[in-house]
Amino acid sequence: MAEGFDVVDLIRAKRDGGELSDEQIDWVVDAYTRSVVADEQMSSLAMAILLRGMEFREISRWTDAMIRTGGRLDFSSLGVPTADKHSTGGVGDKITLPLAPLVAACGVAVPQLSGRGLGHTGGTLDKLGAIPGWRASLSFDEVLSQLGSVGAVICAPTSSLAPADQKLYALRDVTGTVESIPLIASSIMCKKIAEGTGALVLDVKVGSGAFMKNVADARSLAATMVELGTAAGVRTVACLTDMSTPLGLTAGNALEVRESVEVLAGGGPADVISLTVTLAREMLSAAGVDGVDPADALLDGRAMDVWRRMIVAQGGDPSAALPVAPETESVLAPSSGVLVKLDAYAVGVAAWRLGAGRARKEDPVSASAGVEIHAKQGAEVRAGQPLLTLHAEDPSRFARAMDALVGAIEIAPAGSRPESKLVLDRIG
Amino acid sequence: MAEGFDVVDLIRAKRDGGELSDEQIDWVVDAYTRSVVADEQMSSLAMAILLRGMEFREISRWTDAMIRTGGRLDFSSLGVPTADKHSTGGVGDKITLPLAPLVAACGVAVPQLSGRGLGHTGGTLDKLGAIPGWRASLSFDEVLSQLGSVGAVICAPTSSLAPADQKLYALRDVTGTVESIPLIASSIMCKKIAEGTGALVLDVKVGSGAFMKNVADARSLAATMVELGTAAGVRTVACLTDMSTPLGLTAGNALEVRESVEVLAGGGPADVISLTVTLAREMLSAAGVDGVDPADALLDGRAMDVWRRMIVAQGGDPSAALPVAPETESVLAPSSGVLVKLDAYAVGVAAWRLGAGRARKEDPVSASAGVEIHAKQGAEVRAGQPLLTLHAEDPSRFARAMDALVGAIEIAPAGSRPESKLVLDRIG
Repeated sequence: MAEGFDVVDLIRAKRDGGELSDEQIDWVVDAYTRSVVADEQMSSLAMAILLRGMEFREISRWTDAMIRTGGRLDFSSLGVPTADKHSTGGVGDKITLPLAPLVAACGVAVPQLSGRGLGHTGGTLDKLGAIPGWRASLSFDEVLSQLGSVGAVICAPTSSLAPADQKLYALRDVTGTVESIPLIASSIMCKKIAEGTGALVLDVKVGSGAFMKNVADARSLAATMVELGTAAGVRTVACLTDMSTPLGLTAGNALEVRESVEVLAGGGPADVISLTVTLAREMLSAAGVDGVDPADALLDGRAMDVWRRMIVAQGGDPSAALPVAPETESVLAPSSGVLVKLDAYAVGVAAWRLGAGRARKEDPVSASAGVEIHAKQGAEVRAGQPLLTLHAEDPSRFARAMDALVGAIEIAPAGSRPESKLVLDRIG
Repeated sequence: MAEGFDVVDLIRAKRDGGELSDEQIDWVVDAYTRSVVADEQMSSLAMAILLRGMEFREISRWTDAMIRTGGRLDFSSLGVPTADKHSTGGVGDKITLPLAPLVAACGVAVPQLSGRGLGHTGGTLDKLGAIPGWRASLSFDEVLSQLGSVGAVICAPTSSLAPADQKLYALRDVTGTVESIPLIASSIMCKKIAEGTGALVLDVKVGSGAFMKNVADARSLAATMVELGTAAGVRTVACLTDMSTPLGLTAGNALEVRESVEVLAGGGPADVISLTVTLAREMLSAAGVDGVDPADALLDGRAMDVWRRMIVAQGGDPSAALPVAPETESVLAPSSGVLVKLDAYAVGVAAWRLGAGRARKEDPVSASAGVEIHAKQGAEVRAGQPLLTLHAEDPSRFARAMDALVGAIEIAPAGSRPESKLVLDRIG
């Protein structure tokens, strides 16, 4: 460890547009983790980084410094290639659920360390938590053993991975310093690099329901993360995918598990199938596995078989009935024509307000609450037909969810065609 | 009080270049004072304000909100005009010491609430603290009584004035968010407006030894403060004065008291006399007192008389011997010629390292330590002649003080004339 720096001088250097040295970065990340640098000092530094930016060298060193505050996992004893996927978060984004068992069914081990949801996007662990008995917390030995026997695991990261990031992420969340490409990129990549995966596919969402509202920002974030992963020896590619409208026909925990199981059974919405297969091909390619078409493994039941074994291995019952909300409310089409807009952010906020998400880390989520979608963008609809069904445990939730949907739905005269493209770009 | 806001939304609004509403400013200043808004949230907001700026309306409202977190003083019962002076801080700036009794001797009451020093500039209360028995803390009743009987008081502000500012200033000091004109202007003016003075003269220092290193920044700060004071009903003017070289021939607590007494006795360095008289004229004019020349009151002993009564009223002995440092060290002229540079910042840091200043609020200061200056800029000097005498309680201090002086002194061939102008501009 380098000798100490004056943290105020360091903050002022970044504030005034300077670059931080490797030694300054190593010191400040470590000192913050040990609480030598105080929260109020790190938050003003984070704001300065957000507004002044960082050079790639600084981002890379910052990522590395966060990794070095904790341990690293090593899956080399498995003897098979490993691949992981990370999504920057979207509405109805349940892709990890069918994807992890699908890729495992094709011969690549998937150590998928996932998160819980905060705000209007759901969290993978919250979705799987709707399955009776399933547990998210595994020891490293359990992860390793399950990867060997089943080939896929979706679980919570151990607290020993990049503790600096865990502390900094919680701080950024309450200090208005989340939306910084250097800080987002380093936060995502430090965990994925520490996790020890051999290959990584990044699904960078773009649109109203995503962190990144425009393609330019998403491309910049994707390029930074691909460069960080590649520099750390992880074969990394990124896909930019649309998040202007929800993925699939559900947003909510049990609702999304049900839809994922439909996809694993060979059915399900076209966009979810398409993105699952696209990302599976990218993961297999990045892991160096050729000549296997994941589309086959979805249709012939091999992916479903891995799914069931993966759920059982973590204490869940894949045959158990999923929770169903006691209360529902319909949102009807106000006119006839073509549905040209169904806004992702609005649907995400509605699902959140219905109980599917949490406002604070410590809040519980409802397994059964959420939004069911009956018509996707581009569909012909008739006035009065149900477009959405809202699900909640408590009918008092409906009014604020309805508020979130004001302006979210647009219907144009018959014959209109909304633009729609699922994969917008690929980097790496 | 307006209803609560989401502090993260508020931080993001300023971060993204927006203006804060009156209601948002009222809320966040009050909520921070009550610790509802946390230090790490206020520091990221302060950094966003530093980098994004504030409109005058926002600065004015922020100032007002800070005033409303505490009480206000009222000197109207005195029946005489009141005037105060504030300096933004410089090296060797002891002007308050002769100025307050001088203006009082001319018929204007001077309620001078002053501060302690932090960093390389001294604090008025630290200087007066070198006088045996003198005390800085007075109740409001004592201040009012002394203003009535003596006409001048120099003391610490009561803790009930603008507590928001006291909390915020301490936070800015450790988070790299000091150097913001909106935050500096509101911090100075909230205290001066709450103090209840009728007139205010601002001495905005410019140069290496000052906060403001260039005239443009100093003029912007001065104009903002004059506008804030005027809007609050305080007759306010600002002088921009040079701080590229120390004021007078001393920097250090007892050394500066001694020099101030020389000025009150009709002697002392020309620049200290000149600035004292200039600022006294501004204070008398702003207070509406015409036809009195403060230069006379310096020469005929009336100012000295008020000084002695002012010190006695606060428990001090104006005839007592001042502390003298046991150790001295000379800095000699390296060559013969004209002294064209004697850098204010370097002399300030040297005095600080000798013990005259403090690095942390809770540190004690040495009354006797400091720097004595034997030649001012523009003087002819001979190689080997003493330019400075360093004073300290402990000779181990000399080495680091000497380090601070490297590059601080320049001697040019005989006949050179350094530029020198004490008052650079006047606003108001």
